[in-house]
Amino acid sequence: MEDMRPVSVAARFSGVREATQLLVADLGVEDMVIQSMPDVSPTKWHLAHTTWFWETFLLRSQLAGYREYSGEFNYLFNSYYNGIGARHARSERGLLSRPTLAEVMAYRAHVDEAMSRLLMLDHIAENTAIQDLVELGLAHEQQHQELILTDIKHVLSRHPFAPAAFATPTDPGITADDGPCGWVEFDGGVVETGTDGGRFHFDNEGPKHQSILTPFALADRLVSNRDYRAFIEDGGYRTAGLWLSDGWAKVQAQGWAAPLYWRDGDGGPEIFTLHGQQSLDLDAPVVHLSYYEASAFAEWSGARLPDEREWEVGASTRRSVDGRFCSPGRSAHPGATPMHRSAGAGLRQVFGDAWEWTRSAYSPYPRYRPAPGAVGEYNGKFMCGQFVLRGGSCATQPGHVRPSYRNFFPPEARWQFSGLRLAKDI
Amino acid sequence: MEDMRPVSVAARFSGVREATQLLVADLGVEDMVIQSMPDVSPTKWHLAHTTWFWETFLLRSQLAGYREYSGEFNYLFNSYYNGIGARHARSERGLLSRPTLAEVMAYRAHVDEAMSRLLMLDHIAENTAIQDLVELGLAHEQQHQELILTDIKHVLSRHPFAPAAFATPTDPGITADDGPCGWVEFDGGVVETGTDGGRFHFDNEGPKHQSILTPFALADRLVSNRDYRAFIEDGGYRTAGLWLSDGWAKVQAQGWAAPLYWRDGDGGPEIFTLHGQQSLDLDAPVVHLSYYEASAFAEWSGARLPDEREWEVGASTRRSVDGRFCSPGRSAHPGATPMHRSAGAGLRQVFGDAWEWTRSAYSPYPRYRPAPGAVGEYNGKFMCGQFVLRGGSCATQPGHVRPSYRNFFPPEARWQFSGLRLAKDI
Amino acid sequence: MEDMRPVSVAARFSGVREATQLLVADLGVEDMVIQSMPDVSPTKWHLAHTTWFWETFLLRSQLAGYREYSGEFNYLFNSYYNGIGARHARSERGLLSRPTLAEVMAYRAHVDEAMSRLLMLDHIAENTAIQDLVELGLAHEQQHQELILTDIKHVLSRHPFAPAAFATPTDPGITADDGPCGWVEFDGGVVETGTDGGRFHFDNEGPKHQSILTPFALADRLVSNRDYRAFIEDGGYRTAGLWLSDGWAKVQAQGWAAPLYWRDGDGGPEIFTLHGQQSLDLDAPVVHLSYYEASAFAEWSGARLPDEREWEVGASTRRSVDGRFCSPGRSAHPGATPMHRSAGAGLRQVFGDAWEWTRSAYSPYPRYRPAPGAVGEYNGKFMCGQFVLRGGSCATQPGHVRPSYRNFFPPEARWQFSGLRLAKDI
Amino acid sequence: MEDMRPVSVAARFSGVREATQLLVADLGVEDMVIQSMPDVSPTKWHLAHTTWFWETFLLRSQLAGYREYSGEFNYLFNSYYNGIGARHARSERGLLSRPTLAEVMAYRAHVDEAMSRLLMLDHIAENTAIQDLVELGLAHEQQHQELILTDIKHVLSRHPFAPAAFATPTDPGITADDGPCGWVEFDGGVVETGTDGGRFHFDNEGPKHQSILTPFALADRLVSNRDYRAFIEDGGYRTAGLWLSDGWAKVQAQGWAAPLYWRDGDGGPEIFTLHGQQSLDLDAPVVHLSYYEASAFAEWSGARLPDEREWEVGASTRRSVDGRFCSPGRSAHPGATPMHRSAGAGLRQVFGDAWEWTRSAYSPYPRYRPAPGAVGEYNGKFMCGQFVLRGGSCATQPGHVRPSYRNFFPPEARWQFSGLRLAKDI
Repeated sequence: MEDMRPVSVAARFSGVREATQLLVADLGVEDMVIQSMPDVSPTKWHLAHTTWFWETFLLRSQLAGYREYSGEFNYLFNSYYNGIGARHARSERGLLSRPTLAEVMAYRAHVDEAMSRLLMLDHIAENTAIQDLVELGLAHEQQHQELILTDIKHVLSRHPFAPAAFATPTDPGITADDGPCGWVEFDGGVVETGTDGGRFHFDNEGPKHQSILTPFALADRLVSNRDYRAFIEDGGYRTAGLWLSDGWAKVQAQGWAAPLYWRDGDGGPEIFTLHGQQSLDLDAPVVHLSYYEASAFAEWSGARLPDEREWEVGASTRRSVDGRFCSPGRSAHPGATPMHRSAGAGLRQVFGDAWEWTRSAYSPYPRYRPAPGAVGEYNGKFMCGQFVLRGGSCATQPGHVRPSYRNFFPPEARWQFSGLRLAKDI
Repeated sequence: MEDMRPVSVAARFSGVREATQLLVADLGVEDMVIQSMPDVSPTKWHLAHTTWFWETFLLRSQLAGYREYSGEFNYLFNSYYNGIGARHARSERGLLSRPTLAEVMAYRAHVDEAMSRLLMLDHIAENTAIQDLVELGLAHEQQHQELILTDIKHVLSRHPFAPAAFATPTDPGITADDGPCGWVEFDGGVVETGTDGGRFHFDNEGPKHQSILTPFALADRLVSNRDYRAFIEDGGYRTAGLWLSDGWAKVQAQGWAAPLYWRDGDGGPEIFTLHGQQSLDLDAPVVHLSYYEASAFAEWSGARLPDEREWEVGASTRRSVDGRFCSPGRSAHPGATPMHRSAGAGLRQVFGDAWEWTRSAYSPYPRYRPAPGAVGEYNGKFMCGQFVLRGGSCATQPGHVRPSYRNFFPPEARWQFSGLRLAKDI
Repeated sequence: MEDMRPVSVAARFSGVREATQLLVADLGVEDMVIQSMPDVSPTKWHLAHTTWFWETFLLRSQLAGYREYSGEFNYLFNSYYNGIGARHARSERGLLSRPTLAEVMAYRAHVDEAMSRLLMLDHIAENTAIQDLVELGLAHEQQHQELILTDIKHVLSRHPFAPAAFATPTDPGITADDGPCGWVEFDGGVVETGTDGGRFHFDNEGPKHQSILTPFALADRLVSNRDYRAFIEDGGYRTAGLWLSDGWAKVQAQGWAAPLYWRDGDGGPEIFTLHGQQSLDLDAPVVHLSYYEASAFAEWSGARLPDEREWEVGASTRRSVDGRFCSPGRSAHPGATPMHRSAGAGLRQVFGDAWEWTRSAYSPYPRYRPAPGAVGEYNGKFMCGQFVLRGGSCATQPGHVRPSYRNFFPPEARWQFSGLRLAKDI
Repeated sequence: MEDMRPVSVAARFSGVREATQLLVADLGVEDMVIQSMPDVSPTKWHLAHTTWFWETFLLRSQLAGYREYSGEFNYLFNSYYNGIGARHARSERGLLSRPTLAEVMAYRAHVDEAMSRLLMLDHIAENTAIQDLVELGLAHEQQHQELILTDIKHVLSRHPFAPAAFATPTDPGITADDGPCGWVEFDGGVVETGTDGGRFHFDNEGPKHQSILTPFALADRLVSNRDYRAFIEDGGYRTAGLWLSDGWAKVQAQGWAAPLYWRDGDGGPEIFTLHGQQSLDLDAPVVHLSYYEASAFAEWSGARLPDEREWEVGASTRRSVDGRFCSPGRSAHPGATPMHRSAGAGLRQVFGDAWEWTRSAYSPYPRYRPAPGAVGEYNGKFMCGQFVLRGGSCATQPGHVRPSYRNFFPPEARWQFSGLRLAKDI
């Protein structure tokens, strides 16, 4: 039985790598080159960067005789690891016509072949450090699968005719619940959140630690487009008193009057999706909100955003009907809140459909220390100026998130599938 | 005896108002008009805005028959209260040649006279709401006294010949302690921080609440210029691995290589002070650091910045020798760490000399709600994108700060007297 | 009789210097410090710079034993003479609180006293080079008298309540001519323009040279506010086909829909003047136009802007009724076109009221060479990217302009008293 | 014989269209999508825009039953014709992933087929207006052939490893002349420049008109890299006195210290070319200069730039050995000055190798009127803020330029093959 783990890892490696390529199969070469804003990377760059990650953190040091594919790629495809060396500026990734897509695919094949050899080596199964790096690499590639979707969506949204990235699938209908949200109550007290060991997690999810929470309630579903439209119609974007100061400044400077990708259509409100322009499904969760908008909506609702520990307590203790995750051939847009199989069964859409803004600034947990070496740059150096989001979205890979998982973005970011769930003190 | 309180408040009101004018007595009219960056307000604007605060929040509603000084001032001198109405853009305060300084002084006299009448009214002594507003106005004016100093310092620093704001005083010498810092240890556990009632506090200092801290230690003094120079000489500003990602980007973009106001002089490092260019006192605390620099220094030291709750526990339980506060006629720059009167007596400079960056993002305490009305805009709407500083500086008025006092600035801010104290897990 | 000239120059020197100070007598210290955009200089700076000019180009080299007023002023008040040395950045003149206005006035007195001694010296009368420098200095100071007016106007226009710089005078009424403009025809052929010798002129006015012009006509008056309002009402600012490409881009980017300083008042169109907000005099010439607007208006009129040589031919050969020049105590705004004393007498307002945009790019005349030394930087290095304006305005000193006089500004400049006169091919 | 002209036009049409596609045959799809700065258009856009030009100005109105290829292309590929309708912003052409290159090629084929039908129609041969539009379209497409080269060069130059666009050809050697330049003298007097009729010319080349020139001389060759290196080594980029004011500001702000594309190589100065990084050929003409640099070099040389009429007189009256034009399979970079077949035979490189900056601002000739309709936007609306260049470059199509041909760019433009020839007064 001692060879089971490596085989399994190799299979999972292949699965994740193939999933990346499946995701881009319908895109044109031209689509994959464009960088529509500094936060967005071209698809081609994601394909190469995820490959560079394996080469840099595994193959170079662990596979004897490994031949680097190109001396130039370390400069071009290093994202932000100062410990690895100089790199191409993030905002200039759209200037990289070379390597071509074909070369990037050859690079992927080269690294995949070497990785499959590495993962077959006998000693790998016992080497925890290597196993951990492989898990990190898989999680990393899954994060970029999500970014491939959010980034190409932004690229296409900037085209004056807003073309679709993918054909519109025929998803099975669900029985939507369009009633008002319910509340699920929690006692608070001394709680334990974060995770230390066991299955893979990012370093920012630990250490496990105790806090004291006062009693609170969480809404049993995400805020819907219907809810959010009421906020707009009530003058939400024109009422300074609902907004954080920075948020109000942004509303004024950018002329925000609706979530990103909402447009007025002839037949009512529309939204740009990865399947092109669609009429707005009022039952579906609102997405593409900045933290500022989420916060203003919560204020208008007489509620607030959850603390990330409240969210984690909620996600850990109640069973939920999940929302959508990324599933090729299915809709790449959040859907209506599913009905519970039985009444009063608690939170819904905790996982999937939309990332949920929390009011927690992205900070280190008590006694957090980043991993040593360049890998330690993965999370810790970003703990400033961002807010934590929880739960995963319709663009997240199934199995990628968990109760302790912390995503983070600056408060003005809107191009992710970011929505919210209300919370309140009780 | 029932008329004692009003008299006392009236006296304190006069004292604070006179202190503001004393502060600007040596400045020229020309100095008081200039806005050297959007964060800085002209002295003249501070003089008028603090006056507008009394007029707006007290006189209009509480003093029968009060005659508004000018219908235009509500537009010109409202700082950020959306609830009060439209206002002049913050970044354009340097365009306001009118009203002249003389008119602003007449405005002050007009409001002071009306306030003295208000504070003499019999019913004021029993009216807690009014008393609270007066206390808020006094604290508000003291905050602007500090800003008058930090802002005029920035204005003069942008002059190519960097003139002094004030003559150099002859301060009494102190016995400086130039040894390495010591550590004071704390057990952690369940702690209570924040404040609810009793004497005046800002709404962001409450509610009082419980948290769990793990054992920690705080340095017994502020980081000195000598300490910080060692960081610079060790290549601190060139070592990406020490920095938060946003901080490193700032270092690169702005060419930061030392704290704001440090300059290379012919005879060694110099610093621009309110008394002009001076040689750097290595025993004095380092000031004019951004959060990024404070964080990088702590990383380089193998320590970290304190959590604001750790700082408050430290400040509340140990007796400290205070540093300098604002004192007209004395130096307006931080001085060397004072010796303890007896050995091992704990933390020093907890209050005064330099504001101390904590690693706590400025967030609402559990169950925090802003005050209703425009006064509620004082604090809550800024709880995003800023970090908490504690302890007060050489530009703070004596008696203005307390253990629960929370100051806050964006991480890139450097024009305040901002330094740091190290912390570590034990 | 050989001592007459120096006396006369000394008297003219005193007159010009006093006129500068008379101009600012009603301004507050606060008004004189502010720089409202990079093109604008604070009044205080103009007062000092004109003084520096005398010190730098005359006193230092020509007055034995002259004591420089301050070593710092050469850095602060050098405008753009690279040959003189390093200098303060133009866009940061609003940061100069020091020297105070009182010190600048003392500087003026110091230099005036030295200049009066210099101009009394016997040998000055025979020294043409010095005489030329004095004439240059006088013309230079007159140019800054005009800039003092246009700059303070811009400063006050940026104040939300747009205060007046000067009290409104009661000017004697004139009999306005509100009929359509007439045309004065010219044969063209070989013409001679520019000037070489004789009385003082700037180097850019020469050498005198020949050109060939084809037959043309000039409008007999400036374009009026009534004319320009018709252009606006006909959709001039919304009709791309009327505009130069750069102009149309500017209209779109800046939202231009009327000349600078036009505002909609309750009782009709208003204009901000040095005497505050006034209702628009439809008979007065339109001013505060960019080159782009002047060009679009001409296109809309089925005419064009004059070539600068056409203008000069017109100004040299016909006698005109002049418009207003700067006259303290009188209106500092252009007035209605005066009637000719006799019918058909030719061009009116050729001089005074408004600078007239020509379609001539500001270029060197054939065989032009700048004067040697730093004085040579006065004109030649600006011969790129600007257009020539002719004729002087209501802010120009009487006697300052002449037919060969070339003013120049970038095409987007609007804060000068810039208007236009139509021309056409015949 | 009456059917010869249409046949010939059809053949020329095919030749020009094929030449465009030949030019891009070696580029990758990825190369053709990128916009490296607002002035640069993606190759794919050029391919489509030139096609749109034929569709818009010929096919729509002249070919009965013509079926527009796509309703969206009129928005996407209109460059700057306001008369045609709304259009995509120039600076956002790099966001257009769609249509794909393959679709653009299909669009080209569609339009080529329709054009070949149109050009075969009997009445075309007699229709001067149509003939003129065809000639305009051919000249237009040739201009874009040049821009395809200069734009892709800029795109690739922004790649950190600066890849070659084309393989390096083996050009036949020429006998270079590396001596100092000689001077060819001209008498001036009344000259006639511009062109009115006869063979095709752009509207900005006329009307033919007379001017008066004073005696002048033109250098008999272009300024070489050797000449320009001497300017650099003599401190040209550090000597303010040589520069126009705007030019010096640009040098300071951009840190210019050499022409665009010059780089320090290990073995001496190198230059980035369409064939990749190469060592600098000192005998070749200097290119990629801004007007400011050309002007400063001329000043340093004790000479000046030619007036465009001087250049045209020189180009019209002397026979010259031409420099290189665009020739697929040959070098796409300027080469050394060719020797004259006989001594003293006059100007060399008047045509080809490098565009020559003149000191003439791009202005309308006397009595110039743009063509009516949208075609009239081709030239006239750009007559502001630009300078005239003459002679064509190594990227220009053979036969495209002539003595009266006026190219124009803003003074800061450096990405064209722009150099200079000296002139002087005699």
